[in-house]
Amino acid sequence: MLLSAVIPLALSLAVTAGDNGALNGRQDAAPAPAPSATDRPKPGPKSIYKDPSASIEARVNDLLPRMTLEEKVAQIIQGDMGGWMNFNNPLDNTLSHNTSGLVSMMSQKAGSIWAGYAAPYEKFVYGVNAGQRYLVENTTLGIPALFQSEGLHGFTNNGTIFPSAIGLAASFNPDLLKSVGGVISDEAEGLGISHIFAPVLDLSRELRWGRVEETYGEDPFLTSAMGAAYVTGLQSGARRGVSKTATARMAATCKHYAAFGSPQGGLNLAQVSGGERELRTMYLKPFHKACVETGALSIMTAYSSYDGVPAIANSHLMKDILRTEWSYPYWVTTDAGSVDLLISLHGTCDTRECAAKTTVENLNGEMGGGSFTFLTLPAQVKSGAVKESVIDETVKTILRTKFALGLFENPYPYLDYNKSIRTATSRQTLLQMEREAIVLLKNKNSVLPLSTTATKSIALIGPQAGRVSMGDYVFFNASNNGVTPLDGFKQLLKGTGVTVNYAEGSKLWNNDESGFDAAVAAAKKSDVAVVMVGTWSLDQTLLWTPGTNATTGEHNDMSDLKLVGAQLALVKAVVAAGKKTIVVLVSGTPVAEPWIADHADGIIQQFYPGELGGTALAEIVFGKVNPSGKLPVSFPRSVGTAPAFYNYLKGSRPLDPGFISDNGTLTFGHQYVLDSPVPLWSFGEGLSYTTFAYSNLKLSSSKIGTKDGFSVTVTVSNTGKVDGQEVVQVYITDNQASVVTPNQELVGFQKVSIPAGQSKTVTIKVNNDQLAVWTVGSKWVVEPGTFNVKVGSSAKTILNTVLTVQ
Amino acid sequence: MLLSAVIPLALSLAVTAGDNGALNGRQDAAPAPAPSATDRPKPGPKSIYKDPSASIEARVNDLLPRMTLEEKVAQIIQGDMGGWMNFNNPLDNTLSHNTSGLVSMMSQKAGSIWAGYAAPYEKFVYGVNAGQRYLVENTTLGIPALFQSEGLHGFTNNGTIFPSAIGLAASFNPDLLKSVGGVISDEAEGLGISHIFAPVLDLSRELRWGRVEETYGEDPFLTSAMGAAYVTGLQSGARRGVSKTATARMAATCKHYAAFGSPQGGLNLAQVSGGERELRTMYLKPFHKACVETGALSIMTAYSSYDGVPAIANSHLMKDILRTEWSYPYWVTTDAGSVDLLISLHGTCDTRECAAKTTVENLNGEMGGGSFTFLTLPAQVKSGAVKESVIDETVKTILRTKFALGLFENPYPYLDYNKSIRTATSRQTLLQMEREAIVLLKNKNSVLPLSTTATKSIALIGPQAGRVSMGDYVFFNASNNGVTPLDGFKQLLKGTGVTVNYAEGSKLWNNDESGFDAAVAAAKKSDVAVVMVGTWSLDQTLLWTPGTNATTGEHNDMSDLKLVGAQLALVKAVVAAGKKTIVVLVSGTPVAEPWIADHADGIIQQFYPGELGGTALAEIVFGKVNPSGKLPVSFPRSVGTAPAFYNYLKGSRPLDPGFISDNGTLTFGHQYVLDSPVPLWSFGEGLSYTTFAYSNLKLSSSKIGTKDGFSVTVTVSNTGKVDGQEVVQVYITDNQASVVTPNQELVGFQKVSIPAGQSKTVTIKVNNDQLAVWTVGSKWVVEPGTFNVKVGSSAKTILNTVLTVQ
Repeated sequence: MLLSAVIPLALSLAVTAGDNGALNGRQDAAPAPAPSATDRPKPGPKSIYKDPSASIEARVNDLLPRMTLEEKVAQIIQGDMGGWMNFNNPLDNTLSHNTSGLVSMMSQKAGSIWAGYAAPYEKFVYGVNAGQRYLVENTTLGIPALFQSEGLHGFTNNGTIFPSAIGLAASFNPDLLKSVGGVISDEAEGLGISHIFAPVLDLSRELRWGRVEETYGEDPFLTSAMGAAYVTGLQSGARRGVSKTATARMAATCKHYAAFGSPQGGLNLAQVSGGERELRTMYLKPFHKACVETGALSIMTAYSSYDGVPAIANSHLMKDILRTEWSYPYWVTTDAGSVDLLISLHGTCDTRECAAKTTVENLNGEMGGGSFTFLTLPAQVKSGAVKESVIDETVKTILRTKFALGLFENPYPYLDYNKSIRTATSRQTLLQMEREAIVLLKNKNSVLPLSTTATKSIALIGPQAGRVSMGDYVFFNASNNGVTPLDGFKQLLKGTGVTVNYAEGSKLWNNDESGFDAAVAAAKKSDVAVVMVGTWSLDQTLLWTPGTNATTGEHNDMSDLKLVGAQLALVKAVVAAGKKTIVVLVSGTPVAEPWIADHADGIIQQFYPGELGGTALAEIVFGKVNPSGKLPVSFPRSVGTAPAFYNYLKGSRPLDPGFISDNGTLTFGHQYVLDSPVPLWSFGEGLSYTTFAYSNLKLSSSKIGTKDGFSVTVTVSNTGKVDGQEVVQVYITDNQASVVTPNQELVGFQKVSIPAGQSKTVTIKVNNDQLAVWTVGSKWVVEPGTFNVKVGSSAKTILNTVLTVQ
Repeated sequence: MLLSAVIPLALSLAVTAGDNGALNGRQDAAPAPAPSATDRPKPGPKSIYKDPSASIEARVNDLLPRMTLEEKVAQIIQGDMGGWMNFNNPLDNTLSHNTSGLVSMMSQKAGSIWAGYAAPYEKFVYGVNAGQRYLVENTTLGIPALFQSEGLHGFTNNGTIFPSAIGLAASFNPDLLKSVGGVISDEAEGLGISHIFAPVLDLSRELRWGRVEETYGEDPFLTSAMGAAYVTGLQSGARRGVSKTATARMAATCKHYAAFGSPQGGLNLAQVSGGERELRTMYLKPFHKACVETGALSIMTAYSSYDGVPAIANSHLMKDILRTEWSYPYWVTTDAGSVDLLISLHGTCDTRECAAKTTVENLNGEMGGGSFTFLTLPAQVKSGAVKESVIDETVKTILRTKFALGLFENPYPYLDYNKSIRTATSRQTLLQMEREAIVLLKNKNSVLPLSTTATKSIALIGPQAGRVSMGDYVFFNASNNGVTPLDGFKQLLKGTGVTVNYAEGSKLWNNDESGFDAAVAAAKKSDVAVVMVGTWSLDQTLLWTPGTNATTGEHNDMSDLKLVGAQLALVKAVVAAGKKTIVVLVSGTPVAEPWIADHADGIIQQFYPGELGGTALAEIVFGKVNPSGKLPVSFPRSVGTAPAFYNYLKGSRPLDPGFISDNGTLTFGHQYVLDSPVPLWSFGEGLSYTTFAYSNLKLSSSKIGTKDGFSVTVTVSNTGKVDGQEVVQVYITDNQASVVTPNQELVGFQKVSIPAGQSKTVTIKVNNDQLAVWTVGSKWVVEPGTFNVKVGSSAKTILNTVLTVQ
């Protein structure tokens, strides 16, 4: 691609020395000296750092000594496009900017620029161009910035919205997720975005936490696989006009490093309890697999503390492991306002100087959202409190990320950015992901799929039926781009003669039962009832607006996992109407309603959908599409029986359950006295409209050495009458180890399409490192002994054999 | 005391070499060679180990080399008095024993003997005598055994039963608990018991766990103080006829080392998550303070794993910390069956040999209840798999405990054992503890105390009113020795003219509401209603009998903290009757019922009482005694809002609560969306019938050095009209530290009696080590900086000042 493809926007940046000198920083900012000191090498057109053919490290090492201390510090503080663009009105399309604001911003916060703003694209790219051109053309060294936005499940700046991450994980389809990542970059790259704050690699092992929907579930292996697919999809390719040394077209951000997803009490930002072994074997694996091994270009740190040490101040996590052990060379940013939390939340610093010093000494940059403590760094370096070398090492990490993106060759938006947004191909990827994200949990007497010929009418009932319940991390009103279930069913049934009797029944958020009669009437006059209930989240504007309500999403932590308000009563009323009843749970997190599990004829789990959730749901219900999603997270029977994750350590789930019958009769057990720790549905579960049989389980070798991997081969037959996709899952149990290991753990899976009546032989590779335990001696060791190798359609496996490691 | 005071029981132990040779061990036991090898020094009357005036270490070092390998191994395996006594019928009083059973037992399991059997005391002491006399008189070395039983809240062998440990802690009265410990020893010592398996020093930070009732609550400082009081009370003194080197008359057992009380999901034995800092700052403190510093003569290990390492296999915990860092010299026993769990539960061993080797290499002995893996040790030593030196080190620990008890001088029961059981003094101690264990939580409009003159009648309602709900760790039918609340009220009110209208209302364990009408009628015809509801446990026989029911107690883990069955509905029905209603929660763990907190006029928390709980409750309700108990554990609003402990790490309890009104109206918040993480009642809370004012808070010095402690002085005035006891509590907040510290933590308390209208000046000392943090560098360090020092009547403190450490 040619550089001429970038927008030749005419900028009139009247930047003079006088303007520069007039800039006002924060009162407590370090004094701004002249931008270039005489003892620093001056840049020229032939400087190595400007040479696209030079190695990244050579370019970094050439550029760094040319930077003033102030330039270095500005490089590791996040700026904000709002500093020179007015984004107050998302519909405004004025192509102008505030020059002094731009210059001011770039003098102090120039390395990365927050650009997650709703605006007409024309205005948006104007703003990006203004920023990059100023940096490239009007600063001494011409270092372009990372322009940053969100893309957890779709590019948030009005791009295509896919299902929430937990739904993406339910597809168990990394190839498809890779395509999703590609779409996100397609849509963001042309607009000049080079840095996306996703994926979330936290594990959902504490379900009260509001951000469960942002994760790939409870399991480190699935999270690693899906995270790697997202990162690869997002990063693969190259920006236009860049050199061959560029490794990615977009920087992914693996977050939140580390263990952020298990806050005490499920309360957002709360401390996480755990030791080194749990850290290594659970929380860190996805970061290594999905981030370090893929070459992800950035990482974001957690707000929380782990065993009493804030993540951003944790030198063991940030330096020993990430930088030394893993040799991670790229940019690591703190989360918004996170540095100040060392003072206000964790109490490990009492001054901004301390907070900045601690953070940068752990090679983190500073995001906005706080008091910009890093503005204290120039003075701290001069006073000797902070070594310039730690600033240098941190600056190097962001420079590496930029060179790896090819930003020095081309940091600009593309003229034809529109061509890659909302394409027909993207739409197809979206629809396929919507379909595969749906999980069929119960199908009593094959109540599903419904037939457009045998069914004359369906009742579509419930507060989730007429709305698009997207998860968090979407722009204001993003759900307006979505197809409601009601519309999805109507479109699918057009011309079939099947009537849809719709009734909202109740709201999600109150106990008003006044709509029950209409709902029951709709059920009674229909052949079958589909009741849609669940949780809800909000877009990034409303989520943080006082007075709104939501039951999931960032900073919405639930103390209970039951349906809220009148919803369960609505389901009961509809079931009591006497028709076959399908319950669709639309949610961002497991809903714990044993009554529904017991009494509904069919149950479908649809994690928060994207724009085509309604379409896909109708296709599934009427069998146009055979469901193939699997649960990435176990569904406990109640909040009090959590955690319910399948991969608990051996011996940690004693079972002698009691129960409370529908009529209130108490039957006493011990674990638990009146309930069971066995979840309603466990990790990996999900039904199909066909049936699969497993046979011929074979290992590449039943005996391997301690340095070997192995592979598992199994024949899977579609023994039903319709084509289907199966997720073949491989689990191992380390029968005896020097430390306590999980009762079982997923080590491989593969999604395969098998036509009705046919068979496929599937081979899944298990790497040697997947057999390793983190020993008491603090090493990864594959220990001799036996492993049970189990294969099946869920964590409730079907076939098993024994592997001996010797 | 004279040795002649012991029972001169004539034993006819026809032990001959032939008998001995005919003994059958387990099939897999090591072959039994002749008991004394020729190369070992023969014992004589002048052997140092028989010299009461020699030092314990000299005696140990003299004795050990005289022991055969088999004698050593037998010393570290728990035997069982059931091996020679028939305890099947607790009423049988046959004074005979099975000689071959005795000899067989002692040949393999002779170091400690389980003696927690219900039997007539005459028979019991006969059995103890038989065992000890055989060991002393018929074995080569004459090493007496530890005879062991339970005494968590009273000597279980039909001794006096006190409130459950959680209730003992509610007294916040270490001096009184010390007296309780003394009573337990008084009753056990004369019967020949020398080893009591208490106290429990686990922290109740996971309330679903069934054993919360066995703990001193959620706080390490309170647990340390109460644990130290118990240990000191139990151990202080000397057995009759022992030397001056003896340090205790009874061996306490601090358990369960370590972190056993926070199992995942609250499920008994499940793994515990946590790191070194949480281990040090929370879980280990009570073991050091209450056990190591007091010279407690034994420790019991936990069943569970911590960060993936089973406690008994955790060399860091068992050796680095306990033996090296703390220099703990005494006996450490595993829990029943715990060694086999390395195979069956944790999967860290696949053979009994491995389990035994791992356990003994960590200097643990083996309790019964399993397969006696230690019987493999002689062969393992001979094969070189296990070093004899680790056996030696373990044997030394139990020998030290025995010498410290003076057992070599006198291991026998006393003839006059009856004189120290159920004495008048003990009864007074019991009554005082029952009184101080009761916590007044709510007293709207001073509804309490009731007056015997103004009140004509009270309704005593509820399933806890007519029964004695003792906690676990009592003998079969122990509750028959108890006074029910109904009897307590009747006794107190005899002659007052106050009528008691009793109605059970409902059972604890079902939903039957057929008794509601009578309950409501009782309330309506009375001036005031007292409704008694709660949880229940069972005695050690019934607790483990299939088909019984209980909601708390060992291996009864609850997934919910609400009242079970019809109880809440009963309370609501009584409240609806319109009379002033006092709710008494009798429970072993916090009951989470916000409705009761909101709607009852008065609320009394009575943790499981001992034998005089009914008496004390009546005294409190009618003001004969002014309540002075405080909560040792916080009461969350629901299981989903737990943990609710007060001493959470800074920043871990964000607060933006929502709520659900009685009428079902939902008000949305964020933390939590529909509830609050703030508990109903927090640690340290408890009301009095009088009021206390705090003034004149002073520190011994407002500035101290990093090696200094300080003291807090405050004046407390009884500003009400009745005499009362106040628990003055001192909390600190470390304002800035290198690691995240608790938002506040208890560092001192003192219970003081203050007559109405008078004041007392209280001085509470805080030691230097209480200011220390466990640093990233793995050291305890008192860091310079400021601490808020706060004083008050609960964790909601009243006065505060600043301490500077420099």
